[in-house]
Amino acid sequence: MPDFKVTPYDVTGNVDYDRLINDFGVKRIDSTLHSKLTKICGDHPMLRRQFFFAHTNLDKFLAAKENKQPIYLYTGRAPSGPIHLGHMAVWGFTKWLQDAFDCKLIFQIPDEEKFLFKDNLTLDDTRRWTRENLIDIIALGFDLKKTKFLIDTKDASQMYALACQVAKKTTASTVRALFGLQNEDNIGKYFYTAMQSVPALIPSVWEGKSTQVLIPCAIDQDVHFRLTRDVAEKLGYPKPATILSKFLPALSSDGKLSSSSGQSIWSTDSPKDVEKKIKKYAFSGGKDTLEEHRRLGGNPDIDVSFQWLSIMFEPDDKKLENIRSDYISGRLLSGELKQILIEKINIFLAEHQKKRKDAEKVVDKTLNI
Amino acid sequence: MPDFKVTPYDVTGNVDYDRLINDFGVKRIDSTLHSKLTKICGDHPMLRRQFFFAHTNLDKFLAAKENKQPIYLYTGRAPSGPIHLGHMAVWGFTKWLQDAFDCKLIFQIPDEEKFLFKDNLTLDDTRRWTRENLIDIIALGFDLKKTKFLIDTKDASQMYALACQVAKKTTASTVRALFGLQNEDNIGKYFYTAMQSVPALIPSVWEGKSTQVLIPCAIDQDVHFRLTRDVAEKLGYPKPATILSKFLPALSSDGKLSSSSGQSIWSTDSPKDVEKKIKKYAFSGGKDTLEEHRRLGGNPDIDVSFQWLSIMFEPDDKKLENIRSDYISGRLLSGELKQILIEKINIFLAEHQKKRKDAEKVVDKTLNI
Repeated sequence: MPDFKVTPYDVTGNVDYDRLINDFGVKRIDSTLHSKLTKICGDHPMLRRQFFFAHTNLDKFLAAKENKQPIYLYTGRAPSGPIHLGHMAVWGFTKWLQDAFDCKLIFQIPDEEKFLFKDNLTLDDTRRWTRENLIDIIALGFDLKKTKFLIDTKDASQMYALACQVAKKTTASTVRALFGLQNEDNIGKYFYTAMQSVPALIPSVWEGKSTQVLIPCAIDQDVHFRLTRDVAEKLGYPKPATILSKFLPALSSDGKLSSSSGQSIWSTDSPKDVEKKIKKYAFSGGKDTLEEHRRLGGNPDIDVSFQWLSIMFEPDDKKLENIRSDYISGRLLSGELKQILIEKINIFLAEHQKKRKDAEKVVDKTLNI
Repeated sequence: MPDFKVTPYDVTGNVDYDRLINDFGVKRIDSTLHSKLTKICGDHPMLRRQFFFAHTNLDKFLAAKENKQPIYLYTGRAPSGPIHLGHMAVWGFTKWLQDAFDCKLIFQIPDEEKFLFKDNLTLDDTRRWTRENLIDIIALGFDLKKTKFLIDTKDASQMYALACQVAKKTTASTVRALFGLQNEDNIGKYFYTAMQSVPALIPSVWEGKSTQVLIPCAIDQDVHFRLTRDVAEKLGYPKPATILSKFLPALSSDGKLSSSSGQSIWSTDSPKDVEKKIKKYAFSGGKDTLEEHRRLGGNPDIDVSFQWLSIMFEPDDKKLENIRSDYISGRLLSGELKQILIEKINIFLAEHQKKRKDAEKVVDKTLNI
């Protein structure tokens, strides 16, 4: 048994991504595909640093773009709590893809999902979080003229019929195997994945012709879309493509940064919050004493602050490499590395929190939540 | 094992209704309750002849009416084929209840149900039947100002959130036990019953206060509402009441008149169709030869024509009793009994088919299907 676990509902341990590629039956984004992708849409640090590292059918999506066939992006957020940096990492990349491919995006808000999967969460809770999360999502700068939000309970009239089409092709056996459901689990959990398939297929309905969809998401979500790929074929829709990221590591470095860990950095955190959390919780690859660190140097590969810089806060390769070599050599101390990250996060969040103010008005006026 | 079977998806054999009352855990409408009911809303042949013979919580519904608390009726139709007389029997009574109680009615059209349960039916099929069935339903004369149609795929935005509330309280175990679902069944079948619960609960949401719902339906549907009763309590809604009918017997007298038997009488049948089918298929309680019949008489209790007259086509008790005694004595021949029924059905259908013409316009204009 591996010493890690990756499901759509839980990620723990030290994730072996090579093994995941194998277990999930997805493909690595190799250098050929990376070149092809960057030729069309330019490069991005998350691509060249292999934070987005795996895919399914990405080649088909690129072919559709090249052949000027209709394409869509699809991502989502199951509202159940505040937004943290792990969410923003994937959505920042998604926004970049939307601009790079100049295409429409479906942003699904499955406000029933966590309600169905968590005992103590009410639909009122998830609806409050829907509004709150939408503020963050819109603040990230998606092109609203090309972005369609699908809020499951609000937009069910657009979604339920297609969800039933998916459901009819999906047995209880399949969802029991894919999601570990039991007889004691509620029937909403059994049905839910059908709703998550809808945005992967509905663009073909809306466009009135075969439309290729690309889903940027963390690799734990691919299990839903494995089901969608099987069903798409049976229903006569193109199989959706996925472009899959690793996880932004938890501050403790155990598993992914998540809402349940309690040690997250939220979109609304103050500079003081950020400083306190990074200083207190960010797992360090530095040595125990100053003397030892100066002499032996730190290990950036296990250092959460360095990994966060690498994944989302230091896009400049040269600057990142300088930080890395300074850390390895012992010139850069753990505290100094943390300070670099703290400043980067706080600049990012200050900008984001300013945009949240405008986004709030957009949410209240445009979306009528 | 009994020599009959009653599930929401299949009724065969010679139904033992006493046994059903016991098996389903429902109650007989006894003379006390019948008196109480008729005191409020008058009598109806289907009540005094015990075609509607059983109930759950009917006393609570009557109490709500007496205490001027909000009340609703709820019935439905899963579109999958044409309307036959069995449907019209229950809905005719429902219309009478609507007038007698002067109350609002939800008429659910679960256009996904038969799609999910029948392999060869498409959603396009059920949607075509939705329009066609609505013409019949509206032609029956429901008070449209007080009737709300809920068409599942079209009105899912109003229904899905509450269906998820029901689903969260319903385990896979429960639906496996109630509906005989297996691992090989699709996840839409698992979820569907949650959608059928919605109209039993949503009046309380719409009215903003506890609202008592009464569901007139054939007894095979009670299994859905047994689930609703359990869940209603957990969600803080009043348990819905049901008033349950026997089945209009099949022409062959085996099980109920149904769409799948192929020997149905449809709402659009011509007088010739009706005559042919009754003469050819209606199981007779008469004797084999004229001489024998005159001498020994017929048996109305096993005669489908007599039962149909009793259930829906001869409301006059005295006339019915005359037919009965004439048949028993041998004065009335099988062919003559059939002729009485044929004429009654054809008068009923001629009137109905005239009303269908106006109803068609209402469906196209008002409901925008």
